[in-house]
Formats: sequence, structure tokens, C-alpha cells
Amino acid sequence: MSAPEAAPSGEHLRAAGERPALVARTRGPVHVIGAGLLGASVGLGLRERGVDVTLEDLSPTTVALAADYGAGRVRTASDESPVLVVIATPPDVTADVVERALRTYPDAVVTDVASVKLAPFTELKRRGIDLAKYVGSHPMAGRERGGAIMARADLFVGRPWVICRDGETPADALALVEAVALDLGGVLMEMTPEEHDRSVGLVSHLPQVVSSLLAARLVPASEQAIGLAGGGLRDTTRVASSDPELWVQILGANSAPVVELLDAFSADVAAFADALRDPARTGARRRIADLLSAGNNGVSRIPGKHGSSERFTQITVLIDDSPGQLAKLLTELGELGINMEDLRLEHSPGAQIGFAEIAVLPEVAERAVADLVERGWRTL
Amino acid sequence: MSAPEAAPSGEHLRAAGERPALVARTRGPVHVIGAGLLGASVGLGLRERGVDVTLEDLSPTTVALAADYGAGRVRTASDESPVLVVIATPPDVTADVVERALRTYPDAVVTDVASVKLAPFTELKRRGIDLAKYVGSHPMAGRERGGAIMARADLFVGRPWVICRDGETPADALALVEAVALDLGGVLMEMTPEEHDRSVGLVSHLPQVVSSLLAARLVPASEQAIGLAGGGLRDTTRVASSDPELWVQILGANSAPVVELLDAFSADVAAFADALRDPARTGARRRIADLLSAGNNGVSRIPGKHGSSERFTQITVLIDDSPGQLAKLLTELGELGINMEDLRLEHSPGAQIGFAEIAVLPEVAERAVADLVERGWRTL
Repeated sequence: MSAPEAAPSGEHLRAAGERPALVARTRGPVHVIGAGLLGASVGLGLRERGVDVTLEDLSPTTVALAADYGAGRVRTASDESPVLVVIATPPDVTADVVERALRTYPDAVVTDVASVKLAPFTELKRRGIDLAKYVGSHPMAGRERGGAIMARADLFVGRPWVICRDGETPADALALVEAVALDLGGVLMEMTPEEHDRSVGLVSHLPQVVSSLLAARLVPASEQAIGLAGGGLRDTTRVASSDPELWVQILGANSAPVVELLDAFSADVAAFADALRDPARTGARRRIADLLSAGNNGVSRIPGKHGSSERFTQITVLIDDSPGQLAKLLTELGELGINMEDLRLEHSPGAQIGFAEIAVLPEVAERAVADLVERGWRTL
Repeated sequence: MSAPEAAPSGEHLRAAGERPALVARTRGPVHVIGAGLLGASVGLGLRERGVDVTLEDLSPTTVALAADYGAGRVRTASDESPVLVVIATPPDVTADVVERALRTYPDAVVTDVASVKLAPFTELKRRGIDLAKYVGSHPMAGRERGGAIMARADLFVGRPWVICRDGETPADALALVEAVALDLGGVLMEMTPEEHDRSVGLVSHLPQVVSSLLAARLVPASEQAIGLAGGGLRDTTRVASSDPELWVQILGANSAPVVELLDAFSADVAAFADALRDPARTGARRRIADLLSAGNNGVSRIPGKHGSSERFTQITVLIDDSPGQLAKLLTELGELGINMEDLRLEHSPGAQIGFAEIAVLPEVAERAVADLVERGWRTL
């Protein structure tokens, strides 16, 4: 297995779509424990590839719902032993469920998709469990709302899927978990549990906490101040609407790296405040500019939706704030043969006017603007 | 003038689009000093309404470029005195330019569009300048890139336009500045310079610094860690790509409120780290959940399209990833009489499928879903 640093091109994804499921080559069903968003999405994706999937959940309603959605069938005592068990329970019970699965299905390979990896691993080792058949994994996919009803077969397509294994994991066990990840369209990355937890601490957990704390500052703010909010505030606080209960679990299970990051970040903010406290002091402006420039450099490292944020050009079109207008715009884009890669509607508070932000390939951007203007649209 | 807490309805904007420019009723040109993004946009917008605009800039190239773009004509010594001077220079020279304009054109009303308001005001008062003809203002508009070539006649349409006046500003001077703001499509808000600076400190300057510092943390990160970046990180660090030079000026001119906010925020982050340091301690998880919930509450206060983001229900519709499909969906929504309050398109990288997230009024959500499903759409 390779551990690609950058996500590979779409090539292997298209290839994955055409070839038979890797997992289907094995005998016996895949058993999914926990039929929420992730578990049901694993089931839907594998069912779509013709894999036999059985489902289990503490909640009879949840498991029945997931089965109704086509994520698999509810497991019964008469079912044959699974070849693979995928555990998609909340992170705080992952270790317990892994242990139980290893005992219940001694011939199966067991994996989990929890968003923290070191804590379950450490707990399982502490209990003296034989982990030869356990491979931890974490697909970097999710949605703001959870539950089987939000599940989709393509949830993992093109997303990094981290594999964390023990040094002694047999090659065939590892290959099976990789096969599921590839069948579901994931992009394999291999890390140690420590590397994984530090990495998600930086790119996911720290931004979550920072965004939440920033949004919390708005609670006591005046209506007037809030009325001046623009796109910058909306972007920086968007993830602050995430589910607190889930995040208490995630952060609690990855506290050491996150605390370290928060301590450092708190010091960063304090240092910035110190530089700004007397901006006329020699060197203060230089220091502030350097910190802001470092932000420029950091943001430029983040890969975009399709590999690089630079791949698309944004066109902003002014529209009347009515569904008919936007439909007309999109119909005309279709007529003009302009393929829209992304769309975002932005609106001015209180104004009967909106802005459609359309992402197109750079090579068509100029023509798209010219064509739209010729048809009477106003672009920014 | 009223100082609406929520932006007024679109009524006055439609009206503004139809009635003759308020500013045109006055005699004499409007003179714009500083022909960058904001100054040239003011010029373009007023020219479009038939107002005579003269331009001035320290850079002969910039002013010629703005004139070429149609933002007005370069001012010469033989031009008649302006009735209004709009100053759109960088914030660090605003006070100097206001003073000079008040002396050069003693009959004109003078305004500026700088993004900080207290520092120029204080400096002008310190110099003993008579401010009877000065009204500070700040249109909440901008673009990521500056310069006359990015200027737009409709840059201010639907955006809040803050007016900061001295208690003794004569009504006719105030009315003239409000007329320009309305002519350019802005939504008037009145604040004291202190209120303005504290407000933009919270909703604009603090998020900018936080986003920059968060992005700066990515500079030393491993490729592997960056490879796990998702939408949350992209959203929270988007504004970190802003121009450091401009922001050094803005932050330097609003240092007192921003330092106060940064000190408090640094303490918030440290307190969160403390709660997370021993998550198993009694009360720690509750404390973490409370802080995350406060983030939920804060983000819900940010106005969306028509006032409050809590006002709408989200419907997610599965669509083929093609412009024709989305246009069809929006056309059908129009046919069904369902008014869409907001729209966001999401799609899975590499997948030929997309999700249209549509915000509708809660009372129509259920019917909208039923109608869409009946027409063969898949909703989540």
C-alpha cells in the first residue's frame, strides 16, 4: 500500500467505479455495527457494489431505518459469520465494541471509523486484547447532521481514509480494510494512531474549538454590531453550529494533542495582542504584518475541494432575490454550455438582491462572463 | 434618518433604483479623493446615476485608470467647487486628507469611507479642526483584491453603510452623505465612532486575526496533516488570505478595541484548554459542552438573507451534478410557489452527484419536501 501525501487524481476513482468490489471477492458478509450516518453510508456504498451487508445497532429503530434505506439487512443469529466487521459507533464506546466484536467473530477482521485513534488503541492494549485482527481507520467524511437518514453511498468518495495499524497486523487483514476503503471511493493514507490524532487535532479539532469560541463571543453582542456581519464572520463561524455532544466526545478522546494546540494558539493570540497594544512602537507593525503573512502562507497550503483551491475561478452574478431569477441564470448557463463546478448564493441583509457565486474552470471564465453580460446579467 | 437595527426591507432599494439620484439634485460635482477599489466604485455608481464626478489620487496612473473605467474625470484647477468630497484613501492618511479637503473646499461637505472611524475623528478634533461639515462613514463592502480595476458601480448595493456623525453636524450635511449612500444602494445604519469601531472589531477584525493565526499554524504542519483538511478548516481560514499591508493599517487604527477582544479571546482559548486538560474531572465535560453550545447560540445570531438564520428550515435535494438539473429544480420550486430563501450547492469530489441545500420558511418545508418527492426528486 502506498500512503499518498496528496490525494491522487480522479484516475483511480473512475477505475474503482468500473471494477468489481474488492471486498466482494471475499466470502461472507460485511457486518456493520452502528447504523448512523457513517455506518449506514458504509452499508449503502457496499450494497451498491453488490456486497452482502448485515447491520446491528443498539437502537432497533435506527437499524430498521438503515435497512429500509438499503444499507443492508438486520443481522440475525442464523447469519453466517462476517468476514469483516466495521464499527461505526460513537468514539467513547469504540474500544468496548471492538473488543466485543473480536470475541464474537474471532475469524473476522475488525475495523472502526472513529475520528480519534490513539485512545481506543491504547485502551484495547491495556486490556491485553490480541489486536492481530484489528485495524483502526478513519474516513475523513461527515455531514453537519447525523443519522441513517443523512447517509449516502458516496459519502467517502474522494475523501482521505486514514488507516492506522499495529506493526504486527497481518497483510491480509490490512488488505481487507484497504479494500473496503477503496470500494467506497476513499483515498488511502497510512498513519500511526499518534500521527492521526495530532493531524486531526490541527486540521479539524483546533478549528472547531476556535470557531465555537469566536461564535460564542457574539452571544452578548449588540444587534447593531451583529448587523455589520459579513462573509468573513460567516465563514469563520460556520462549523460553530456543530453538535456539542458529539464534539465533547471527540475532544475528550483527543484531549492531549488538542490541549497542546489550544495552549499554543492562546499564546499566539496573546502575542498578537501584545504586538498590537502599541502599534506605533518600533517593529510592532512589522511583527503584525509577519503574523498576517504567515496566515497567507498557511492558507495557501490547504488543498481545495478538487485537489487545489486554485482550480476554479469564481464568477459573481447579481440576481433579483427570487427563485425564478436563479433558475433562469442556471438554465442560461446550461444553454451556454458553461459547466458550473460549484454554486453559492449570498444575499445582502434586507435587500431584494442576491449574489450567485459560481465556480467555473479558469479557461471558460472569461467567455462565461462575456456571454452572461451579453445576455443582460450583471457580474461582479 | 432612522437607525434600523435590522436592515430595512428591500422596498427602498427598489425605489432607489427607479428615482433620480438624490445627490444630483445638488449643484456642483462630487469629488472623490483616492481612486482605488472604493473610490472608483463610488465614482462608477454615481456616474451611472448621472452625477458629475471628479477624481484625484496621489498616483497619476491610478486616477487615469479610474477615469478610463468611467469612474469620473480627473479634477483640474478650472473645475467648479465640489458640493461633496468623498475620501477613500488608506486609513492611516484619512485624517490628513479630511483636514486638507475641509480647508481646500470650505463650502463642501466632506465624508470618508475608512474602515475605522474613531482614530480619524479624534485626530481631527485634537488638531482643532471645525468638523461641522465632516460626516464619517463606512460602507461594509470590499473585495479580496483592491484597485480601480476591481471597482464596481454596484459594490455597495444592499450592504450596510454606517454613518458616524458629530452631535453638531448640520442636518443638510448629514442628508447629503446619506443621499450618496442611498444612491449607491447602501442600507443606512447610524452609530457613534466608538460603537462602529467596537462593532467592526468584533465582527470583522477579531475574526480576521483569529483566522490568520489559525492559518499560520499550518505553516509548519506535515503534508500528511494538511492532506486531511476538510471544509471546516477551509471555511475558518478563508479570510486569512487577505492583504497583510491593508490589515496592518486597519488593526493599527483600531488597536484598543481589538486588543481588548484578543485578550478576552486568548483567555477563552486558555479556559477551554483548562477544561479539556482533564476531561474526566467532574464538571469538565459539562463545561466543554456549555462552551460549544454558546458557539451554537452565537452563530445563530448572524443574520442570513432576511434577518436571522434561525428563521429557515434546510431541505437537501439530491441532484445530478449538471447545471440543467439544478435549473430544473429551481424552475419547479418556482412552479410549486415555494420561495427559496437561500441555496448552497455541495458536491462530492469525483462524484457525478450533488446536493442542493435549500432554505425555506419552516411552515412550507413539509409541503415542499412532499411536492418535490412527488415530482421525483430525492430529498435528504
